[in-house]
Amino acid sequence: MTPDQLIAALNWRYACKVFDPSRKIPGATWAALEESLVLTPSSYGLQPWKFLIIENRELREQLVPHTWRQRQVADCSHLVVMAVKKALSIEDIDAFITRMAEVRGGTPEALMGFRKMVGGTQAQGYMSKEWAKMQAYIALGQFMAFAALLGIDTCPMEGFVAEKYDEILGLEARGLTAAVLCPAGYRHPDDRYAVLPKVRFKSSDVIEHR
Amino acid sequence: MTPDQLIAALNWRYACKVFDPSRKIPGATWAALEESLVLTPSSYGLQPWKFLIIENRELREQLVPHTWRQRQVADCSHLVVMAVKKALSIEDIDAFITRMAEVRGGTPEALMGFRKMVGGTQAQGYMSKEWAKMQAYIALGQFMAFAALLGIDTCPMEGFVAEKYDEILGLEARGLTAAVLCPAGYRHPDDRYAVLPKVRFKSSDVIEHR
Repeated sequence: MTPDQLIAALNWRYACKVFDPSRKIPGATWAALEESLVLTPSSYGLQPWKFLIIENRELREQLVPHTWRQRQVADCSHLVVMAVKKALSIEDIDAFITRMAEVRGGTPEALMGFRKMVGGTQAQGYMSKEWAKMQAYIALGQFMAFAALLGIDTCPMEGFVAEKYDEILGLEARGLTAAVLCPAGYRHPDDRYAVLPKVRFKSSDVIEHR
Repeated sequence: MTPDQLIAALNWRYACKVFDPSRKIPGATWAALEESLVLTPSSYGLQPWKFLIIENRELREQLVPHTWRQRQVADCSHLVVMAVKKALSIEDIDAFITRMAEVRGGTPEALMGFRKMVGGTQAQGYMSKEWAKMQAYIALGQFMAFAALLGIDTCPMEGFVAEKYDEILGLEARGLTAAVLCPAGYRHPDDRYAVLPKVRFKSSDVIEHR
């Protein structure tokens, strides 16, 4: 991996407006992207999310009207709905600690120290829906970057009615809510946005050295 | 770039607790990472951020007490403070539109259509500090991923007193606030966290297929 390859992938990437509905991401590529979602870093490692991978055509068509009629959710190869917990409970923290013990072993004392620290943060109301959504955006940033490196197009989407998504996908009843969407697949040759120059502020306007 | 390389980088990555203060990221590598920050995707392309790259040792030591005494901010090679606008104004949107015209040309009519759409969203109060912070987390996710691919260690940090950072870095007066930190550099051989197995929920617990 060279620095140039990384920049080339980012310049190739754009928010895909028209996906080619006939093209499907190959299994091995998709498996790696799915694995990358699982490996996404999060605050304290708590992973306050579920990643819904929607391939069912009928279900996706049902989501279009609640996405400002943007067809990407239906025409992509794989639609990722990044859903998060509306509020992290002490039970969620305990589930993570159980998993931690499973993977790492570790003394009950060490785990109790961690529980006290993280539980303290949770008790202060810090682990809100907004906090959980921010974690989902880490997943979003990483996912789009890796997809671009593998030649897969994506489109980050905030323009959807979360309440409708939650209802249709049965998230509401589980204390989850759709945070952000990321359809993935292949750009359609007709997508005129693909060839537009990328608009970024000058480096000197966003980077400051101290 | 193969799917395996991507997963290997993610498994190599961890939240670095102890950086080696004697090691500096080479110029060409850092330049690419900085460029990747500039190229980060954001909602409507608005880039509601400033990335502060802090190398000054004295300034970094000054930040340690406001970071729960975590030394990563002082011992890393480059400290990135991801700062965002507390509220996006119509002037900010216009600055982006000016840049858009500079890069792409385009008719005033087309740009006015964009201004109306984005301005409408802004007028509804949607482009809050929380929204801007979420955009910064896209940058965070992408930055950590790319750093790992280039063999650079990072540590995402939410544990800091934003008010103090804003004051010390002069962000407050500019309508900016520190959203999240990401020190970058090289893990110290003594960091025992580097060798701990990564704790992630089972794939079947976070990925759902529909």
